[in-house]
Amino acid sequence: MSTTDVPREVVERTVWVAEDGLAVVVIDQRELPFRLTTRTLASVHEMAEAISTMVVRGAGCIGVAAGYGMYLATIEAETLPPASGDTFMQQAADLLVSTRPTAANLEWAVRRQQRALEATTDGPDRIRIARQVADTIAAEDVAACRQIGIHGLEILRTLQRAKGGPINVLTHCNAGWLAFVEHGSATAPIYAAHDAGVPVHVYVGETRPLNQGRLTAWELDRAGVDHTFVVDNAVGHLIRRGKVDVVIVGADRVSRQGDTANKIGTYLRALVAHHNDVPFYVALPSSTFDFAMLDGEAEIPIEERSSEEVTHVRGITPDGPQSLRIVAEGTDVRNPAFDVTPAELITGLITERGLCEPTEEAITALFPEPRPGR
Amino acid sequence: MSTTDVPREVVERTVWVAEDGLAVVVIDQRELPFRLTTRTLASVHEMAEAISTMVVRGAGCIGVAAGYGMYLATIEAETLPPASGDTFMQQAADLLVSTRPTAANLEWAVRRQQRALEATTDGPDRIRIARQVADTIAAEDVAACRQIGIHGLEILRTLQRAKGGPINVLTHCNAGWLAFVEHGSATAPIYAAHDAGVPVHVYVGETRPLNQGRLTAWELDRAGVDHTFVVDNAVGHLIRRGKVDVVIVGADRVSRQGDTANKIGTYLRALVAHHNDVPFYVALPSSTFDFAMLDGEAEIPIEERSSEEVTHVRGITPDGPQSLRIVAEGTDVRNPAFDVTPAELITGLITERGLCEPTEEAITALFPEPRPGR
Repeated sequence: MSTTDVPREVVERTVWVAEDGLAVVVIDQRELPFRLTTRTLASVHEMAEAISTMVVRGAGCIGVAAGYGMYLATIEAETLPPASGDTFMQQAADLLVSTRPTAANLEWAVRRQQRALEATTDGPDRIRIARQVADTIAAEDVAACRQIGIHGLEILRTLQRAKGGPINVLTHCNAGWLAFVEHGSATAPIYAAHDAGVPVHVYVGETRPLNQGRLTAWELDRAGVDHTFVVDNAVGHLIRRGKVDVVIVGADRVSRQGDTANKIGTYLRALVAHHNDVPFYVALPSSTFDFAMLDGEAEIPIEERSSEEVTHVRGITPDGPQSLRIVAEGTDVRNPAFDVTPAELITGLITERGLCEPTEEAITALFPEPRPGR
Repeated sequence: MSTTDVPREVVERTVWVAEDGLAVVVIDQRELPFRLTTRTLASVHEMAEAISTMVVRGAGCIGVAAGYGMYLATIEAETLPPASGDTFMQQAADLLVSTRPTAANLEWAVRRQQRALEATTDGPDRIRIARQVADTIAAEDVAACRQIGIHGLEILRTLQRAKGGPINVLTHCNAGWLAFVEHGSATAPIYAAHDAGVPVHVYVGETRPLNQGRLTAWELDRAGVDHTFVVDNAVGHLIRRGKVDVVIVGADRVSRQGDTANKIGTYLRALVAHHNDVPFYVALPSSTFDFAMLDGEAEIPIEERSSEEVTHVRGITPDGPQSLRIVAEGTDVRNPAFDVTPAELITGLITERGLCEPTEEAITALFPEPRPGR
């Protein structure tokens, strides 16, 4: 894995194939907002490590990254005897899926690759197909996020017209373009509104333990969108005091009836929005649905991550980025990375096909066919 | 203000008068849990600075500290001509009250001193009275917290008997002995249960931005109480999944009908507890009531603190404590330090006179007389 510093202006997407076609380049999201660097990943193991350590993160982004991880695996498999190559591909798939158990897009992308690759055991063929599928997953992700922006814009425009002044959006974590390939999910309506001249202001919550709110603040600053940063504890107060007109968050896995796994703390925000009659939307490409699952609270696996994410925090000093211990050694820590928001707390789902009620009936009506890759 | 490192075993309370009677010694709570140091404060200005910078913090503790601040002011006033001495005392009172606008105990202690000092303009008399009042406020705080422990123990014991296993308590911020003089408010029932052999486990939330959860973890570790540290975002998930049997928090100001200002994020916890049928208690000495105020949400002033508390965090390195920037420079930040939990989300108030419903009727029935100092 090699690292390169890059100027802020040149990067417009999160994942791409290196010029020689033999490696994948990603933004190192652990270094943002303090340093914009890319990492070049030359094997499926490097990709898996980048996903599990959250060099690469975000629902759509890790789906696309996993798609390219399978592509890297086909390059590695070509040098092996056919039987070993097949085993290697299966191990590559298992490895990628195991990195982030809550993430639906990741598993979806790997399974889609596996299905496409069933047709052939020929090395060069496999490479060609895997590249095509990975490129398609990325292109579909970009297109879906663009459509989410178009549909979400209508929601913001309607709210803004009813209100008059700038519309205050609360989001959580980073469901911006950094979490996808371009546009983002929760941010797509915000960017679309900003581009359309609809006045919008965003409250960005810190999102402990990994503080992805600062990634969202970095994105919004870059795009010139007005925003305010607060700690996670402040969101109840803001909503209760009428400072928030609408909440829009992303998702990591959404069940067939609309129960939504997203970054830990999402459920708190949904509950306080619901209790104070503030609309709460989940923005997602359909690749985040898990159509095999009905009751998200009972069935979605919740990833428990390292306690070091809680006990240490990354920041910046004049000498560069640094990690600092902020909890006493020996403290017992739990670190669930996601929670599940039950569908009844969600106003609507903003998908690439339009707004959808969070019910099994509405979701399966909007997405009746088995999607590609399922 | 002078600083002294002290061994962890010797300190048993948060505030005391120096041996020569001319200064007040406090634990520097900004250095905990990484270093246990005391600061010696020799003037009302030093005391006010210690309170506003949160060297001294916590509802009861800053009340007691303010009482001693007025005592320090009487020593300073003695060297001035009578008219200037009176002016100085008034300025001292204003200065102390202005340091933390949400805190009820602080204003209460200052007013109590002012009323006691009305009787005399004689310098030595004033010093003697102020010392006596400050000592009384501290002694009453200790006694009230002890009683809160006794009453709260019954709640925990009843819940534990009904459940069988260890009772899981969620608290917020630090309403421990560090926030008072001894025992604490929210922690008093926990310590009483631990001492009585009632099995208890505590979930400690980080409490961004100033991370006072690590003070609570330090206290619990010192007392041998089983506990687990989580980020603030995790509390909804824990409660929703049945990991929490009861929530107990402290308070900074409670209105006559039970609306409770406490550390930012308390409202979120109360709402999620209410929604999931988990009892939510506020523990407070009656000095935290503001009997002049009915509607806490409309009337309690919410202190907005420095953005640096959000953009920087204190931690520990092998070279000692350090402050680290964790939000990009130039980011717009809001930092409300408290929120208000409406009475309807509160199961009960644990006071030194026993458990009380959060209603005007019940509160004024339990505390019918104007309390000393009001």
